[in-house]
Amino acid sequence: MNIPAFSDVENAHQIVQKYAHRTPVLTSSSINKIVGGELYFKCENFQKVGAFKFRGACNAVFSLSETDVQKGVATHSSGNHAAALALAAKMRGIVAHIVMPENSPEIKKKAVAGYGAKITFCTPTLQARESTLAKVVAETGATEIHPYDNFNVIAGQGTAAKELIEDAGDFDIIIAPVGGGGLLSGTALSTKQLLPNCKVIAAEPAGADDAFQSFHTKNWVPSENPNTIADGLLTSVGQRNFIIILDKVDDVVTVTEENIIAAMRMIWERMKIIIEPSSAVPLAAILEGNIDIQNKKVGIILSGGNLDLGRLPF
Amino acid sequence: MNIPAFSDVENAHQIVQKYAHRTPVLTSSSINKIVGGELYFKCENFQKVGAFKFRGACNAVFSLSETDVQKGVATHSSGNHAAALALAAKMRGIVAHIVMPENSPEIKKKAVAGYGAKITFCTPTLQARESTLAKVVAETGATEIHPYDNFNVIAGQGTAAKELIEDAGDFDIIIAPVGGGGLLSGTALSTKQLLPNCKVIAAEPAGADDAFQSFHTKNWVPSENPNTIADGLLTSVGQRNFIIILDKVDDVVTVTEENIIAAMRMIWERMKIIIEPSSAVPLAAILEGNIDIQNKKVGIILSGGNLDLGRLPF
Repeated sequence: MNIPAFSDVENAHQIVQKYAHRTPVLTSSSINKIVGGELYFKCENFQKVGAFKFRGACNAVFSLSETDVQKGVATHSSGNHAAALALAAKMRGIVAHIVMPENSPEIKKKAVAGYGAKITFCTPTLQARESTLAKVVAETGATEIHPYDNFNVIAGQGTAAKELIEDAGDFDIIIAPVGGGGLLSGTALSTKQLLPNCKVIAAEPAGADDAFQSFHTKNWVPSENPNTIADGLLTSVGQRNFIIILDKVDDVVTVTEENIIAAMRMIWERMKIIIEPSSAVPLAAILEGNIDIQNKKVGIILSGGNLDLGRLPF
Repeated sequence: MNIPAFSDVENAHQIVQKYAHRTPVLTSSSINKIVGGELYFKCENFQKVGAFKFRGACNAVFSLSETDVQKGVATHSSGNHAAALALAAKMRGIVAHIVMPENSPEIKKKAVAGYGAKITFCTPTLQARESTLAKVVAETGATEIHPYDNFNVIAGQGTAAKELIEDAGDFDIIIAPVGGGGLLSGTALSTKQLLPNCKVIAAEPAGADDAFQSFHTKNWVPSENPNTIADGLLTSVGQRNFIIILDKVDDVVTVTEENIIAAMRMIWERMKIIIEPSSAVPLAAILEGNIDIQNKKVGIILSGGNLDLGRLPF
């Protein structure tokens, strides 16, 4: 299997920096005071489409050859990857075929359609999503871009940690949330190359702890009946992602729903920025006492800022 | 009456820039597309204590002589000015006496107490607030710092627009919300000096339209029974503020509650930043069609980001 290395993140950055925002790194003296460490937040909630997913999708779309690109790209997703792929395809002037469950929120359907993607609706099961996508790919010849278990997507996601380290310097620890593992594996590639002594720690909801189980048993465990407010972290870790995680991640810790909500509220109230629940999972791990950050310099990737403002947990 | 000029804003900036954040200026391509103009948002929601009020309080506290400062400062406020004055006093190492209505939200009482201020509670009427403050001032010899009708406070608030113009260049229009008029009068001082051809427009809730009435009749009208979600804009315009507004502001427009909420939600959803309702009033005026901004470059001061997340209007 083709696994990216840091040089692939560097190549990805040449592409990504042309199209994506170089998002700011923010700090909060009041949160630092509460937790006893020095935290630096990489704000991918300010990224295009409101999430880090644009980096990977952008790299995947612009890495395709002129020949391959003609028939477009395809994926199944109801979340940030769908919007990211749709926008990246629009920027390259090609078609994106997106398979979405018919019960996806209207706001997400509109966002994807607004970027000009061709949407195919299916019944809301993983099986229907996969079979519908296979059919779309067979009919159109489009290139499938998996949301996380994809060489170019992983390399693209690694550019967030690369920028964080370039902009804010040395770190003792960098923490990322883990769902499929695209962000986490990319973060590990960049961090272990640029700061070999920096620990890379993954934070995961206890209600969707497949990465935690897989990492500690060193055997891939699928995500079964996950249940968490962090809706970006429901999926199983990908194969490429798991290989990189086993090789380069120092620890995976889990957090309660209560601490996810407390961390989310703390960031909203103290930093005045909007993050989605998945973004709050690293700070939740600190609040829960699962990561020792006393007097340490810690980088945190805030993965995105898309959520329904009418359905907040507080 | 002593009215500040732009040179006083320049002097204030020498002080304010030592203690306050130089807040970022953000843009949103999706909001620009919706409104048809080029908007630049000066993010005072990221300012210390979460509001522009820190600028004026800081200038007022640090402009006091060594003799005057010994007996501390005092004000009555249940809002952002109370926290701002408390923090500025703490930074100068003096005491701040804050008179607060006893029914103030717990979170605000805690914030002010957290900065080390001495709080005196009173019954929640303007008369009780003023008489209690007079008593505190008589007993302590503290210097009263009015939240907006104060020479140094106005000069301090003018530093936000000064930074906006320095950082984002020429503007056709700058829009600020108006309550007591501290931010608006300071904004007008800076704008008319630095960009004489730029219009300064004030936006005010229709449910608290004393500035609108005062401006258009050229006679000071008090705010009576104001009713708006924009709780920072309930007060009557101050005397010094009104003199500057009549001299230097080009127009005052009003907006509906519906458009304040729509504008607030648009900024939260599209920009992923948290603003309080008062901050949304300028964009509400644009959405309402009250200000022609087609193809114009427009600066907007986002006044603050403090609100109860448990009581959102959407």
